[in-house]
Amino acid sequence: MKSLKDRIVTLAVKDLEAIEVALKENLVTYLGFVSDVAGHLLFAGGKRFRPLLMVLSARLCGYNGEYDKTFSVIFEYLHTATLLHDDLVDDAALRRGKAAANKIYGNAEAVLVGDFLLARSLSIAARTGDIKVIEAIGEITEDMSQGEIHQLIGKGNIDLTEEEYMDVIRRKTATLIMGACRCGALIADAGEDSLSKLTAYGYNLGMAFQMTDDLLDYTSDAGDLGKAAGADLREGKLTLPVIFSLKEAGSEDRQKMEAVIRNNEFTDDDFRALKDMLEKYGGISYTTSRASEHVAKAKDALSTFKASETRDLMMMLADYSINRKG
Amino acid sequence: MKSLKDRIVTLAVKDLEAIEVALKENLVTYLGFVSDVAGHLLFAGGKRFRPLLMVLSARLCGYNGEYDKTFSVIFEYLHTATLLHDDLVDDAALRRGKAAANKIYGNAEAVLVGDFLLARSLSIAARTGDIKVIEAIGEITEDMSQGEIHQLIGKGNIDLTEEEYMDVIRRKTATLIMGACRCGALIADAGEDSLSKLTAYGYNLGMAFQMTDDLLDYTSDAGDLGKAAGADLREGKLTLPVIFSLKEAGSEDRQKMEAVIRNNEFTDDDFRALKDMLEKYGGISYTTSRASEHVAKAKDALSTFKASETRDLMMMLADYSINRKG
Repeated sequence: MKSLKDRIVTLAVKDLEAIEVALKENLVTYLGFVSDVAGHLLFAGGKRFRPLLMVLSARLCGYNGEYDKTFSVIFEYLHTATLLHDDLVDDAALRRGKAAANKIYGNAEAVLVGDFLLARSLSIAARTGDIKVIEAIGEITEDMSQGEIHQLIGKGNIDLTEEEYMDVIRRKTATLIMGACRCGALIADAGEDSLSKLTAYGYNLGMAFQMTDDLLDYTSDAGDLGKAAGADLREGKLTLPVIFSLKEAGSEDRQKMEAVIRNNEFTDDDFRALKDMLEKYGGISYTTSRASEHVAKAKDALSTFKASETRDLMMMLADYSINRKG
Repeated sequence: MKSLKDRIVTLAVKDLEAIEVALKENLVTYLGFVSDVAGHLLFAGGKRFRPLLMVLSARLCGYNGEYDKTFSVIFEYLHTATLLHDDLVDDAALRRGKAAANKIYGNAEAVLVGDFLLARSLSIAARTGDIKVIEAIGEITEDMSQGEIHQLIGKGNIDLTEEEYMDVIRRKTATLIMGACRCGALIADAGEDSLSKLTAYGYNLGMAFQMTDDLLDYTSDAGDLGKAAGADLREGKLTLPVIFSLKEAGSEDRQKMEAVIRNNEFTDDDFRALKDMLEKYGGISYTTSRASEHVAKAKDALSTFKASETRDLMMMLADYSINRKG
């Protein structure tokens, strides 16, 4: 039996190909250097999760125009801009299994090319002629930057609460995925009901997606992940598996965990010991179950749409958001 | 007799005060840290040149609505975002006489707060409900980032041509100032003729403004400038005074100049020697005269508008773009 990922790719192959073409066509710049830096990350095997969600959301709401692929690139460009700026913020060495752009081209270059991608997103959004789409892009970008800043200033804060964590991941991740689904509905001129259901789908899928990312940082290996495992911990970035386990642990184990968290040069043994604590105090299973709840809500939001291949695919994408290796 | 700057401030005092209020009111964020970082630069004595130009351009075209100040902040936020990212690019220590934001708060923080300001600009632009304004903001942001990148990859290039220099400053500086004037005309629903004249005014004023900035880096002292003099040269950033003088110099003097340019740890004596060359080969006077030509064109573009206090003030602002110390 084919893997979920393979079945999704088989069903979505035409859309994914068209998105790939649109991503290349809309990267309009007079500087070859900009194409190189943007392309380094943009064409390094991204899943195209966000543009695909926009295209499918539009189709689910009956859109049959020609511009869905064009508009969908907004969400990949915004995502890529964020990654370019994040790699600098996190001082990450690897991204998608390649050296991070700022390590090859320099920090300044990565920042400015990120700005260019933000600007291209805006220009493409303007071409929708739809103020609601444009407003959404503005709000998404505001939310993402504030979520990133909140995360950044919270680094090393051992007292970060689950509530703050949820607020951060909503802003930094769920908002963009939700936005892709919302804007798909908007360009299809969907009614209020469909719009709010696709918003709920996107929000819940986005939350599950980020929780899974945060889990993978503890459960995956670098090969699948395309970046170093344990990176969050090394940066002092507390995520739900750790936040929950710290709360549940007795004072002795809590102190042991805190010692690893505070030491950003922890050894492989330290990391394994911490992972054991996450198992012992249920941080892994709690996060998995919260993510699954969000997936259930995402799928539920689709239930009143008429059955179709598009809906099936979106159901599969919801499942995929938590059943993936990287 | 009052200085030109004082006369401008006297005439524009009400607008400047209202812009200041709007800049504070529209900096909407749930994170005090974002207000702090953005405010560090945003409220450090900027001239509010760009928002004032938008307000005046709108008024010159008969706008009498209430939102000009609100919309005008777009141009100060975009400008500030660029400065935040630039300080990182240039690794500058000082900006407006204060430590650069990235030196106090960190590179990552400066990048993300810059992103937030870009996003706020977009959200405010969306509130105009005017697709042309939004398109303009997209184009401006694309141009600015490409201009900055072009400048960055051209650093240390001793063969930079006058044409390339003009292209860079058009994108990185003139486009935003032109955009402020254009968008003023757009929110006033101005006709094609007024729109194209204000576009010409803004473009020429912007070119003169940047040429003057580049001159001041050689002719001003750090106190007036709010940042270190000779900074461009230290970064390997060739500007018109140098480009022109290199072209005019004989091979011996050209070699002397190149030696200083290539040595980013040049001494005060080296810098003085280079400045003498800029005088000797006419780089200073050539740049001054090119800037003056642009000011003349800017003022000429206003000549068919009916005489008014607003037009007088805009004429004075054109003069001010080249008659300033910092």
